[in-house]
Amino acid sequence: MIHNERSEAQREASLEKLKKALADDDFAALVEQLRAMHPAEIGRVLESLAPKERLAIWQAVEPTVKGEVLLETYEEVRDQLIQSTRVGDLVIAVSQLQLDELVDLSEKLPKPVLKAVIRAMDGQRRQRFQAMSVYPEDTAGGLMDADALSVRADVTLYVVQRYLRHYRRRRGSLPEHTDVLMVVDRDNRYLGLLPLTDILTLKPSVIVGQVMDRRIEAIPAHTSERRVARFFEDRDLVSAPVIDDQGYLIGRITVDDVIDVIREEGEHSVMRRAGLDEHVDLFAPVFPSAMRRAVWLGVNLFNAFIAASVIGLFDAAIEQLVALAVLMPVVASMGGVAGVQSLTLVTRAIALGQLDRGNARRLLFKELSVSLVNGLLWAVVVALVSGLWFNDFHLALIFAIALIINLLNGAMVGTLIPLLLNRLGIDPALAGGVMLVAATDVIGFFAFLGLASFFLL
Amino acid sequence: MIHNERSEAQREASLEKLKKALADDDFAALVEQLRAMHPAEIGRVLESLAPKERLAIWQAVEPTVKGEVLLETYEEVRDQLIQSTRVGDLVIAVSQLQLDELVDLSEKLPKPVLKAVIRAMDGQRRQRFQAMSVYPEDTAGGLMDADALSVRADVTLYVVQRYLRHYRRRRGSLPEHTDVLMVVDRDNRYLGLLPLTDILTLKPSVIVGQVMDRRIEAIPAHTSERRVARFFEDRDLVSAPVIDDQGYLIGRITVDDVIDVIREEGEHSVMRRAGLDEHVDLFAPVFPSAMRRAVWLGVNLFNAFIAASVIGLFDAAIEQLVALAVLMPVVASMGGVAGVQSLTLVTRAIALGQLDRGNARRLLFKELSVSLVNGLLWAVVVALVSGLWFNDFHLALIFAIALIINLLNGAMVGTLIPLLLNRLGIDPALAGGVMLVAATDVIGFFAFLGLASFFLL
Repeated sequence: MIHNERSEAQREASLEKLKKALADDDFAALVEQLRAMHPAEIGRVLESLAPKERLAIWQAVEPTVKGEVLLETYEEVRDQLIQSTRVGDLVIAVSQLQLDELVDLSEKLPKPVLKAVIRAMDGQRRQRFQAMSVYPEDTAGGLMDADALSVRADVTLYVVQRYLRHYRRRRGSLPEHTDVLMVVDRDNRYLGLLPLTDILTLKPSVIVGQVMDRRIEAIPAHTSERRVARFFEDRDLVSAPVIDDQGYLIGRITVDDVIDVIREEGEHSVMRRAGLDEHVDLFAPVFPSAMRRAVWLGVNLFNAFIAASVIGLFDAAIEQLVALAVLMPVVASMGGVAGVQSLTLVTRAIALGQLDRGNARRLLFKELSVSLVNGLLWAVVVALVSGLWFNDFHLALIFAIALIINLLNGAMVGTLIPLLLNRLGIDPALAGGVMLVAATDVIGFFAFLGLASFFLL
Repeated sequence: MIHNERSEAQREASLEKLKKALADDDFAALVEQLRAMHPAEIGRVLESLAPKERLAIWQAVEPTVKGEVLLETYEEVRDQLIQSTRVGDLVIAVSQLQLDELVDLSEKLPKPVLKAVIRAMDGQRRQRFQAMSVYPEDTAGGLMDADALSVRADVTLYVVQRYLRHYRRRRGSLPEHTDVLMVVDRDNRYLGLLPLTDILTLKPSVIVGQVMDRRIEAIPAHTSERRVARFFEDRDLVSAPVIDDQGYLIGRITVDDVIDVIREEGEHSVMRRAGLDEHVDLFAPVFPSAMRRAVWLGVNLFNAFIAASVIGLFDAAIEQLVALAVLMPVVASMGGVAGVQSLTLVTRAIALGQLDRGNARRLLFKELSVSLVNGLLWAVVVALVSGLWFNDFHLALIFAIALIINLLNGAMVGTLIPLLLNRLGIDPALAGGVMLVAATDVIGFFAFLGLASFFLL
């Protein structure tokens, strides 16, 4: 029973069936196929389709599932789907969501939909929704849900178990990812955690306050989501309490939200390095896609022209010795490669909080040393290659020296740029690469052409 | 009570105290400071220190905590720490670990340590350890732990609860992240899941088989870790059963392992793009660091020389019209930037399983269209700038056409390279960028200089 291949084959088969049903205009078959799929799967299929097919399939997704599917798609696809859904269906779709999910979506929903959903809430739910909407999306308050189950410290485990049974009878189930109950005082201030395993395995007569776990601190609502993720990772948590500035329990964060944060963090840094937005739609229409990328190309064009103007300063030298034009891109590109390595290493260290004033200087020294070793190594190689190629010993020497200079330059700017950007509060993943390449191009051309004009001509 | 800033300040303060204790040679203070820190925190501090300080602090970490700390550090740092720990301390350190953690470390441990640890295991634990060591590290079998609690389908919840109490009395606690029990038949074949919340809230007389959740399939042991992560994400799981080829329950995977996989996946793709290993030590000694990066620089140097040789073909043209040398890097770099954008987008889509034969062609068409729009836009700009700069209308026209060609080329190779590498089983994150830049440099220089020689001279 090879589950993976089977389920892979299954997935492809169900995609085939979906497409066939679409081609045949067989709405019933479409609905049936979709019913067998998980919302996350539907989301990924929708993302991989062209807008027209996407909307056709979206029509066939059951309204009660649509809310979950929306949460699983990239922002751009999501917006498109929301715009093409009738108000009534949207209301049904989002009413099924948990409060934190609804808060995440709420900004994107048409006003009438949001109003209808809020109107339909009971008093407590509405109050919680409004309390949660206060916090920015990328903070603990934005991640949390208000469904924390809390108990008082002075009751027995027997009472707690009765409360849970009662809760389940009324609501059908406990909130997902309930591995602990939050213990609070009479004013709802957070005191500690009571694991379900304790309720199950300790004597019913035990008092909550005697066994609760006080080691896990609560997370203040304004904590950044990145920090929340680290908190969960370091402590291997499934759920954790969130408190407001006064220490009152206002909600809880569960590990599934944290996984989303970590996944997005990873995608974010990869996409930003190419000047892309991680929420972008793979099959977005051509014109908007082109305009979004145009900015990045424009910034790079500006840099390229600055580098070109440096070359322009030495046009007389190039006219005399055309080998300079042949070799100059090598100097620039090697500096860029070495610089990107330092940049990547330093950017990660910053994200992990491993760099401070104390060790930044040592790191710079180390990166420069690494580049020096590599500079000496590859200088020998390029001197040999260019010496044999152009049969010009002096040119080979200048080429080698310029290469060493630009590798050192790459290490220096690759280390300093992310430190500087971080201090200025700019995301190094977005701006670091562009600035680096500008610096290594300019210095690379300048060093090589400048030394050559001075010594060779 | 601003927890974050406080704890940030605290962290810096404790780092300061650590360094002070180190400077004062005050071993007792060092030990005391370290005792107040979480293993993950200690790991991150160790990573941020130079090797000498690192080892001094490592000496002061209590042996019982050392195992956890090792798990929290990058491979290279870890190896160094292991090498500098006495055998006896290492045995104590790793004996405290969970089996899956021990399996992960086992390859790196000195033989005598591993033997001593295995010798000290009881029969069941040793058997489990050996069963787990069979599976590669990056599969479900490598991720799993053998500590799954399982129950039979034909018993009552009352019996289950008694079993849990007994287990806890004997072992002190249930395995971490136990949110469900695995339900098996009399031969230990996996049947379904029994959530703890059901045991807590349903009548004790209920039979397990009547309420167990059959919706979550078990994960086969050879499933790749990447797929396991997706499985957890799609279904919001805390723990999931792992089965062997015959469907027998052999272990479980918990969400903390999955988080590590996702985090590493993100770091992996960022670091690989710069030819770096994600396990690398920030403060590795200079010479080994230089040698590791030398390979990447060498590959890029090779590519740069190929691009240079293309320029060399047109040395006569450059001699006649030196503006060609000034402008040619602009053409090459713009193609590279456009190409990296396509490459990044396509690589992500492949990782998410969103590309197949059906939509790859459409994606290529879309990427080409996006580049065409941007090519036309920026062609106008570069024609204007270069026309004014060199006062040469024909040169400006050739420059603009070459730019369009190279943007199209970037989109094409940026889309096709990751598709091709993926089919060949090569990681696009590692090799994609290098191949792309080689292609956009060569085609960029060739198009610009070739057209210029043909039409201008």
